[in-house]
Amino acid sequence: MKINAKTILFLSISLFLEMTVIAQEKVHTYVDPMIGSEGVGRVFVGPSCPYGMVKPSPDCTAGPNSGWLPIPKEVTGFSQVHVSGTGGGPKYGNIQIMPFSGGLDKLDQTSFRAEENVKLGYYETVFKENGIKTEITTGEKVSFYRITYPKDQVKALKIDPGFFLGEQEEPDGREAQQFVGSQIEIVSDTEIRGYSRIRGGWNNGRAYTVYFWAVFDQPIAKHVTYKDGKFYPNDRAQFDSGKKTAALVSFGNEGKQELNVKIGISFLSELKAKNNIKVEIPHWDFNAVLATLENKWEQLLNRIRLSADTSVDYKKMFYTGLYHTMIMPVDRTNENPLWTNNEPYYDDFYTIWDTFRTSSPLITLIDSKRKVEIINAMLNIYKREGYLPEGRSGNDNGRTQGGSNAEVVLADAFVKNLTGIDYELALKAMLKDATVPPGGNEEKEGRGGLLDYIRLGYVPYGTDRAGNRTIDYSYNDYNIAVVAKGLNKMELYERYMKQADSWQNLWRADYTDKGATGFIMPKDANGKWLDDIVFGESKIQKPTFKYTPVIIESPWYVCHWCVFFYEGTSWEYSFSIPHDVPELVRKSGGEKAFETRLDTFFNSNLYNVANEPSFLTPCLYHWIGKPYLSSDRISTIIKNNFNTSHKGLPGNDDSGAMSSWLAFHMMGLYPNAGQPYYLLNTPLIKQTTMTLENGKSFTISTKKRSDKNKYIKAAFLNGKPHNKAWISHDDIMNGGELLFEMDSKPSAWGTTILPPTK
Amino acid sequence: MKINAKTILFLSISLFLEMTVIAQEKVHTYVDPMIGSEGVGRVFVGPSCPYGMVKPSPDCTAGPNSGWLPIPKEVTGFSQVHVSGTGGGPKYGNIQIMPFSGGLDKLDQTSFRAEENVKLGYYETVFKENGIKTEITTGEKVSFYRITYPKDQVKALKIDPGFFLGEQEEPDGREAQQFVGSQIEIVSDTEIRGYSRIRGGWNNGRAYTVYFWAVFDQPIAKHVTYKDGKFYPNDRAQFDSGKKTAALVSFGNEGKQELNVKIGISFLSELKAKNNIKVEIPHWDFNAVLATLENKWEQLLNRIRLSADTSVDYKKMFYTGLYHTMIMPVDRTNENPLWTNNEPYYDDFYTIWDTFRTSSPLITLIDSKRKVEIINAMLNIYKREGYLPEGRSGNDNGRTQGGSNAEVVLADAFVKNLTGIDYELALKAMLKDATVPPGGNEEKEGRGGLLDYIRLGYVPYGTDRAGNRTIDYSYNDYNIAVVAKGLNKMELYERYMKQADSWQNLWRADYTDKGATGFIMPKDANGKWLDDIVFGESKIQKPTFKYTPVIIESPWYVCHWCVFFYEGTSWEYSFSIPHDVPELVRKSGGEKAFETRLDTFFNSNLYNVANEPSFLTPCLYHWIGKPYLSSDRISTIIKNNFNTSHKGLPGNDDSGAMSSWLAFHMMGLYPNAGQPYYLLNTPLIKQTTMTLENGKSFTISTKKRSDKNKYIKAAFLNGKPHNKAWISHDDIMNGGELLFEMDSKPSAWGTTILPPTK
Repeated sequence: MKINAKTILFLSISLFLEMTVIAQEKVHTYVDPMIGSEGVGRVFVGPSCPYGMVKPSPDCTAGPNSGWLPIPKEVTGFSQVHVSGTGGGPKYGNIQIMPFSGGLDKLDQTSFRAEENVKLGYYETVFKENGIKTEITTGEKVSFYRITYPKDQVKALKIDPGFFLGEQEEPDGREAQQFVGSQIEIVSDTEIRGYSRIRGGWNNGRAYTVYFWAVFDQPIAKHVTYKDGKFYPNDRAQFDSGKKTAALVSFGNEGKQELNVKIGISFLSELKAKNNIKVEIPHWDFNAVLATLENKWEQLLNRIRLSADTSVDYKKMFYTGLYHTMIMPVDRTNENPLWTNNEPYYDDFYTIWDTFRTSSPLITLIDSKRKVEIINAMLNIYKREGYLPEGRSGNDNGRTQGGSNAEVVLADAFVKNLTGIDYELALKAMLKDATVPPGGNEEKEGRGGLLDYIRLGYVPYGTDRAGNRTIDYSYNDYNIAVVAKGLNKMELYERYMKQADSWQNLWRADYTDKGATGFIMPKDANGKWLDDIVFGESKIQKPTFKYTPVIIESPWYVCHWCVFFYEGTSWEYSFSIPHDVPELVRKSGGEKAFETRLDTFFNSNLYNVANEPSFLTPCLYHWIGKPYLSSDRISTIIKNNFNTSHKGLPGNDDSGAMSSWLAFHMMGLYPNAGQPYYLLNTPLIKQTTMTLENGKSFTISTKKRSDKNKYIKAAFLNGKPHNKAWISHDDIMNGGELLFEMDSKPSAWGTTILPPTK
Repeated sequence: MKINAKTILFLSISLFLEMTVIAQEKVHTYVDPMIGSEGVGRVFVGPSCPYGMVKPSPDCTAGPNSGWLPIPKEVTGFSQVHVSGTGGGPKYGNIQIMPFSGGLDKLDQTSFRAEENVKLGYYETVFKENGIKTEITTGEKVSFYRITYPKDQVKALKIDPGFFLGEQEEPDGREAQQFVGSQIEIVSDTEIRGYSRIRGGWNNGRAYTVYFWAVFDQPIAKHVTYKDGKFYPNDRAQFDSGKKTAALVSFGNEGKQELNVKIGISFLSELKAKNNIKVEIPHWDFNAVLATLENKWEQLLNRIRLSADTSVDYKKMFYTGLYHTMIMPVDRTNENPLWTNNEPYYDDFYTIWDTFRTSSPLITLIDSKRKVEIINAMLNIYKREGYLPEGRSGNDNGRTQGGSNAEVVLADAFVKNLTGIDYELALKAMLKDATVPPGGNEEKEGRGGLLDYIRLGYVPYGTDRAGNRTIDYSYNDYNIAVVAKGLNKMELYERYMKQADSWQNLWRADYTDKGATGFIMPKDANGKWLDDIVFGESKIQKPTFKYTPVIIESPWYVCHWCVFFYEGTSWEYSFSIPHDVPELVRKSGGEKAFETRLDTFFNSNLYNVANEPSFLTPCLYHWIGKPYLSSDRISTIIKNNFNTSHKGLPGNDDSGAMSSWLAFHMMGLYPNAGQPYYLLNTPLIKQTTMTLENGKSFTISTKKRSDKNKYIKAAFLNGKPHNKAWISHDDIMNGGELLFEMDSKPSAWGTTILPPTK
């Protein structure tokens, strides 16, 4: 190439354009919905808008919680509502469709995938047997399917509102979804309407109804309707008689191969579902729907930008983490069938016990307006139904796993100065949890075992999950105290601050295990520590088993739900006192003993990365003045457990709980939910810039960061030394820069001014 | 007239035919739905099948519980769902229609009635302003309207799913129904579909949805739809956006003047409502629908026949009493939106506290198969929702007024040997009430104040309705004991039999009022009797008022719901111990003192005929060996309070509670619900014959009965002397005849063998 002025000009322009492109790099492209899809992560892989109501996905058998399973598992169909990252019995999987070729004479149209292609907002698969390609994108309340049939094949489609996930033979199986009713009507040659009514599922909820309106861009040539095992070629409708209904329709084998299908859903009615299509996707442009969705995500995700040198893997892990955090709870404003709907309404809190620690604070940091909406929805649920949600799905509260952790969410909003929330009402709602037993169904809401907790200062063994309930309620009480103090209700403040020490009543000070002394252990209502705990309901025999701090579950014949600690051991829970780590350190024998105890915990595989109660534990070294040990642990945990693979999440993602834990740590921040600060650790990212909703920006930068230089030598906030290993929420909101100077060895930074405590 | 053989033959045949007619006299013609419609009775006046789901009636303003008010009150329209005899805030009033003449430009089509004509299964009115005649009859799930417009007038009709009874401005007013959503679609020129979704009402229930499908026998000529204050002449549908919707349609002013309208309703879907029409009323024959309804009632009502000499007034009072007893609860089998519906499902238990005493036993006597269905529906509610219903309406439990009185209903079925009920399950359900507090909402179900009741043996003052709760729970516990014993669970039997004495813990033995000693009185949790009781929530002042046995309500500024006794005084409730009258007599100072006390009660207007807790009290003379005094009281009470007028019921009919009290006493029987016998009193009817479901019949006859001979001299059961003033359920079921020999003065009959007791 001959270099001349023109060439230079051209190269300059090219370079400028390229730089512009880099500057405007679309961060949403780093989202990989497949991260955490296999193994234990169970994330939803289909397209979803932020907090989107409709979540279309393949259902690979009726078993998996998110609907999806990896190839070669068969595909039953594509249903429109799913949850992400959950354990236990499935929920949803409503209004299934399935493209096929052939006669309209068979309800089961199960197929196998030859390939699959997933990116943010987009799902595509080609079936092995018939070569049909299905592409899916989505609006907030409308799924969009582009189905391409092989040439000259019959273009057939099943619409099956009788399908749902988690079906079991047993009529009232715990955690199983149960069929209540369904209906289908072929309205015109391009429209089908109907609904699916299902009860139960993981939260044992009351019946919910998903209404739909489906529209096709080709006319139906032939149809049969279906009910309860029989086909009706002459009937255009099957009314709800408590039996499963469906329709099989054919669009012939001529004309264009591409069939487009829009499925509006609603929790109010079929006409509302139709209107959702009209309002949201009045056209047939698949790519425009996808572009709109991408843009919504881009607006949210690019509020946090990572320095250009960040590896693609880290970008994927980070932005996918943010993405997973913002697909639940689900925005159902104007879709509430329970009360008039001019207020924000959210569903699928699944569950707050999982999400209060990291997902909820991350939403506050990125999208506090949304957080305010979510909290107002929670307060509306309290106003109309009597209790805040802990878990909630299908428009019904349930279940609680431990505490009434909505208290933490409310306190977190309060201490972070979120406005637009009636905190007097919030305190009232929290006090309801803390004072009024939830009654007959202690799993639904509120605090099970509350009366004993108040009377004895702990939940005695014999009440399900007595151990973690005591711990959770203690923290919840601290959160109540915080809000009470802020509202200048000092009497309440003192009462609940005192009650926040309740965890100490289950602290068995002289119990020793693996060199550590003092554990949260089961105690009966008479105050007696229990070494052997009873199981079973026999009145004649009293079978027992030995309870130790490493027991994670009782024997198989004891109900999983009735154990002392929910999904965890005493080793794990005995670190889980987020409001009073100094007292925990003291009770554990002082700083040295506590350090040894933490080391034992991590080095002996007692730490369970998959479980939320241990989320804060790697940071506990901060409270003994050794934040570098926290950073070491976190770095190792991430390296060993998180990656960009399909198995890249080490536990159920639980509505983004696991993902948001990762995203926070990658930035070098970690929240202690309910308290107005973030712990500081070595960031994985060289520079992170947050665009704040108040118009300011906040940057976390590192100097001399390398694999070797992994320790913080010094920190500067807006140029001034910042010697604390934590930063207040206000400091971030004020904007500016936090700079870490890195070094190859631990320093004295952050060792003297310990993190705040109650 | 010239008498000849031919004439004699003719006369003979006429006489024979007339006799046949008398023999086949249709007893349903004696039902007068207007009895108890005015004043406090509040009965539903429109047509209804037995336990019928659809109950069409005019709504005269949005205020009245049954919809109807007497002329000259205006009519807003005719809605399809109502309840009968209730107090408190209204429920239902859904899917209103209103015929009118004129332009389709005004939602309010209120008219005044020129006349009104009501009989069983039939309602008719003519509007004053426009001369439109509306006739209504009904199937189980389909209303049928025959509307006759004046010649050449525009035949217009409003269909208004936005209407409901009990609307208030206040968004969450206690007991007020609240609008959630509605929808309307003009499907074809003869069909309209839609729904109304409402929450709240007297039982503070969750949202329920009434779907409808309306069909016309003339084509719609013109229409406008309506939403939220605006008319839409070009839109055939208004989807649910949380705003009120309606349609105004015109059938022109030509052609036939008579417009027939069928409105199917459903709690599942519009198509189900359509199918309900197809199954039930596939034709347009108004008179055939009416005849079917009459026949259904005839089959039930003629199971009890009164001797020919019975006065028309007595026949009316009696058969209307039976009729009122069997219009609620409502059979919603195959209409349950909460779980699969292959089991009986009943709703509108409104409330069992009202109906357990007389309505429920009367249904058992006439129609035990139905009773078994109702009980199985109750047990299904327990299985699926965790608690038996006490009150239930709109598919949601609530509210409790006193005890968990489903216990009485279950025990009553058990002691009367009803088969087809899983009594082990029933006992489990009863024990749930008795052992597990209902939690946050103590009005919804179960037993409020339960823990104190168990701990202290009474509900202490401070808990709402502590007095009657203690009394009710005592009786409920007796009922549990009865079933436990029958199932050979002697440990349970003993525990609950002991607990059934709990009422004694509130017996203030030394308290004297109007010469009577010993009253159920308020006691605090420390065991201190309270003469002055606190009201209000002020923490600074402790305002009190003096509580005495004649206080029926606290001052106006104290919540009606929070008083010591629900709707009653201590004088009333201190007689209300149906399982242990002998102990009550003893505690009241013995037989003489008890008689004086009863006399004081009735003679000093302390007795409240309108309230269920005093239903048994007139019979208490039986337990001191003076059944003739019971009969005297009953006779006087009926004479002074019951008649065939519109004001012929002295209290809220409460789903037939008041009416069934009357019906029982007219036959000379009175049940003590939960116990297997009936008290015997002087019948008002000379001879009553019951055709029993087992094919046998049982007759109660009197000999020499006259106004003067009002006392039972002797009784004979199947010819053998029957010296007890009570008869067992088995004796009746075995068939035969109970004959009373009457006399003008009290006799020794029934004075020595007192009625059974615990």
